[in-house]
Amino acid sequence: MHFADLLTERSRSLSPICVGLDPALSKLPEAITKDAAGILAFGKGIINAVSDIAAAVKPQLAYYEALGWEGMKAFWETCTYAKGHGLVVIADGKRNDIGSTCEAYADAYLSAHSPVDALTVSPYLGSDTVQPFIERCEKNSKGIFVLVKTSNPSSGELQDLPIGDEVVHERMAQLTESWGSNHLGKASGYSCVGAVVGATYPEELKYLRTLMPHAIILIPGYGAQGGTAADVAHGFVKGQGAIVVSARAIIFASKGRDWQDAARAAAEKMKGELSKALKN
Amino acid sequence: MHFADLLTERSRSLSPICVGLDPALSKLPEAITKDAAGILAFGKGIINAVSDIAAAVKPQLAYYEALGWEGMKAFWETCTYAKGHGLVVIADGKRNDIGSTCEAYADAYLSAHSPVDALTVSPYLGSDTVQPFIERCEKNSKGIFVLVKTSNPSSGELQDLPIGDEVVHERMAQLTESWGSNHLGKASGYSCVGAVVGATYPEELKYLRTLMPHAIILIPGYGAQGGTAADVAHGFVKGQGAIVVSARAIIFASKGRDWQDAARAAAEKMKGELSKALKN
Repeated sequence: MHFADLLTERSRSLSPICVGLDPALSKLPEAITKDAAGILAFGKGIINAVSDIAAAVKPQLAYYEALGWEGMKAFWETCTYAKGHGLVVIADGKRNDIGSTCEAYADAYLSAHSPVDALTVSPYLGSDTVQPFIERCEKNSKGIFVLVKTSNPSSGELQDLPIGDEVVHERMAQLTESWGSNHLGKASGYSCVGAVVGATYPEELKYLRTLMPHAIILIPGYGAQGGTAADVAHGFVKGQGAIVVSARAIIFASKGRDWQDAARAAAEKMKGELSKALKN
Repeated sequence: MHFADLLTERSRSLSPICVGLDPALSKLPEAITKDAAGILAFGKGIINAVSDIAAAVKPQLAYYEALGWEGMKAFWETCTYAKGHGLVVIADGKRNDIGSTCEAYADAYLSAHSPVDALTVSPYLGSDTVQPFIERCEKNSKGIFVLVKTSNPSSGELQDLPIGDEVVHERMAQLTESWGSNHLGKASGYSCVGAVVGATYPEELKYLRTLMPHAIILIPGYGAQGGTAADVAHGFVKGQGAIVVSARAIIFASKGRDWQDAARAAAEKMKGELSKALKN
């Protein structure tokens, strides 16, 4: 199934929630060991708790890489486990490099047998470094999310620079829309090339939604970073076309023995908040 | 020792060559197995061949990640082996993410006991995402190289966009210079924050050298991508302040049994070419 159709269908039947798996050792529940085996057990526990609420999970590669190859083993096992539970798996790596090398990244994450459904991609190097990812998306029914406007405080330093009558992130949005416009899912009408736009910039999100009518927007920054349900509602069109990430507020909802129940409750709460905001 | 002093000293005593380790399976010598064990054996063989000619090696993470966790195990073992042979080790990952996550990347590659000396970093997210890397550089005598002007054909799509009287890559160069200006090596006068500028854009390299007087410039694009010794000479000041990457032309100089001898000969040839160009 086309990636956009898969994600849209699952968002519609469950919720447009993507649970960020950011297993920072210092924040793990007390009962979890602070090593690669621990982050795998933690990831599985979160997946068990949210797999019938959330559309997707987004394992953040940095936390797995920080534990060396054992961490990367835990990463792949976590992705396989999530895929086995029906979740859409978005690997957050913000990868990219020049042509021949980004072929290798595309093969690493978006091969036909990979449990990863989509990868986040950095656009600083330009179109020729995005094309190999798009080829894998078409061939293997995968997706990418291109960084357009990130959620962090200094994202504007480069992304908001004025170029003529527009700013850099507008130009990136236009490129993202153009990269995906030939690869639309028949059921959803959305493209395999999505965009990352932070919930912390709701005005930009509102405008960028209009610039990228075919891009599914992955919206980080909900909850712990300050984004609200009303903020992220700007990313949706008729309740579709966006997926909202929450990590810390769900996965670290409790450090005690009830961490799975607390994560589930936090995801249920977010589902309610989004549902209400999207009805307005 | 401060990273810039280490790299400068080794460049002076051997050559300003950085051998790119891009172990694409399809290009490996015939005698090498096409798996993780093979890319480790290949990396060690290249290191043995060039460790008394080149200042540094630059393993490209994408090719190791493409082989899953076994590939990442080979990556770390290759880095340890290179470090044991005295080479400066530059991990080419073009990593970055928002604050808390880039702490994890910084810990993954630039911790005190890491065999990696420096990491390439993408600047699309802005200053607050570069700061955690710089903290590790200061604390653990490590370095980073920030992407300023990359060597690929469409690098200009974003990097050359005009902002007022300048273009995006000039602004990135100014930021890079400012990020490193408080962290200079006493012996070399260079900073722990270097820049990536492609040999394929010699005019930009010449100008960017003047904008970043304290940044060591990592110059990819020599040889296979078209950059010449005369082109890269623009990156140097009195024979210092830059390091030139060659990957394919050295590591894949032969597919036959003589692959190590051929790699060594290609590195020697490049050393001669650079030496001649830097005397002019």
